Amino acid sequence: MISIAILGFGNVGHHLYRAFRKRPVKVLQVFSPSLKVSEEAGTQFINDVSQLEKADIYIVAIKDNAIPSFTDSLPFENRLVVHTSGTSALNSISEKQRRGVFYPLQTFSKEAEVNWKTIPICIESEHKEDLPLLQELGNILSENVVEISTEKRQELHLGAVWVNNFSNHLFHLAEDFLKEAHVDFNLLRPLIMETARKLEAMSPSEAQTGPAKRHDTQTMEAHLKLLKDPKHKEIYKLLSKSIQSKF
Amino acid sequence: MISIAILGFGNVGHHLYRAFRKRPVKVLQVFSPSLKVSEEAGTQFINDVSQLEKADIYIVAIKDNAIPSFTDSLPFENRLVVHTSGTSALNSISEKQRRGVFYPLQTFSKEAEVNWKTIPICIESEHKEDLPLLQELGNILSENVVEISTEKRQELHLGAVWVNNFSNHLFHLAEDFLKEAHVDFNLLRPLIMETARKLEAMSPSEAQTGPAKRHDTQTMEAHLKLLKDPKHKEIYKLLSKSIQSKF
Repeated sequence: MISIAILGFGNVGHHLYRAFRKRPVKVLQVFSPSLKVSEEAGTQFINDVSQLEKADIYIVAIKDNAIPSFTDSLPFENRLVVHTSGTSALNSISEKQRRGVFYPLQTFSKEAEVNWKTIPICIESEHKEDLPLLQELGNILSENVVEISTEKRQELHLGAVWVNNFSNHLFHLAEDFLKEAHVDFNLLRPLIMETARKLEAMSPSEAQTGPAKRHDTQTMEAHLKLLKDPKHKEIYKLLSKSIQSKF
Repeated sequence: MISIAILGFGNVGHHLYRAFRKRPVKVLQVFSPSLKVSEEAGTQFINDVSQLEKADIYIVAIKDNAIPSFTDSLPFENRLVVHTSGTSALNSISEKQRRGVFYPLQTFSKEAEVNWKTIPICIESEHKEDLPLLQELGNILSENVVEISTEKRQELHLGAVWVNNFSNHLFHLAEDFLKEAHVDFNLLRPLIMETARKLEAMSPSEAQTGPAKRHDTQTMEAHLKLLKDPKHKEIYKLLSKSIQSKF
């Protein structure tokens, strides 16, 4: 059975821990500086890196900019250490270690359960010999494990920001606007779901609808009048113009 | 059984026809100037308004700016005529008729089947006595029929533009970007679905993640470097700034 240690216990670390403990993987240790020393179902929770034991894979799930110094401070060398970041380069990990990447392409919030089976897991390794082990670990979680270079992973992560972070922010702005207008945001929930569901069968360009696509300036002007915040007007104009440039 | 005529046979007209013909509603006629005269399962397809027969409800599913003149040209008076628009006022319908609104809050593409049960149907009527019939017709399609004023419907429609049209455009931009980078857009599909699914259990503000929320300027700068098109840089900056203003 593959043995792992999870280093960092934020959103990603939590979700990895919860997922692996239910699967045939030996989670030896979870490290985070703020953890209380304890043990749960065979996993040691520790707050001191010097207590790290020998594991097949060390999964570092910490803030991007902390990866170089943290991995450099590890009390061992030449072991397989992977990070979970969409943007950090493979070589942001200390050169003392056998470097790798194990990036689950998903949005993690502490409260929301995720469906690991469908989550693409992007793997990369410095040494070819380490790739099969990462592939094996990925397969335990997901049906969609892909080897992808640092450069391509960074581009993919940018795409993820557009489809998740930015879309979700538009939902947020719509919620704020409707709250102020005393209109029930829940009425939009089926539309949000359908917006995603539609893309299971067609491309975004085929799925596009709305006043901007139709070049319906009358409706767009009416909408701009309804928006009070100049920043929201600016976003509305920019996105509408961008849609119009495609159709 | 309620009898209806569908006037206009674009996306919305098509979907209404396909939905009602499978349900206990008598679809007497479908009118569109470009239709070939024919009959299908008891429904007459006509291209001449003068051939319209007496129906309980006339559903006008045409472009917003054509509603006033088209409804004024109808060869009858004082009948229940409703439009399906998110933005047109109730009184954009000719005053000769009993005016109403039957607005299904959804995005319609010809190819994509929709789940009518969950689609909110927003109804409004000039005469109180006409409301129960619109409610009854709505209930045949959906479990979510709500009476809502022109003003509130217009605000809701603006919200729909943000969550559907604008989000979908972000998916479109991500697809174009990844195509150019030779990265498989399909890797983002599970994330798009999860972005919507998450909102079944939490609010958009709780669901927000990403570099902008974390004020991770290093990642944002790296992303801006990857974007070649100045318009895309502008959208990236504006949305990131807008996210940062909330967290």
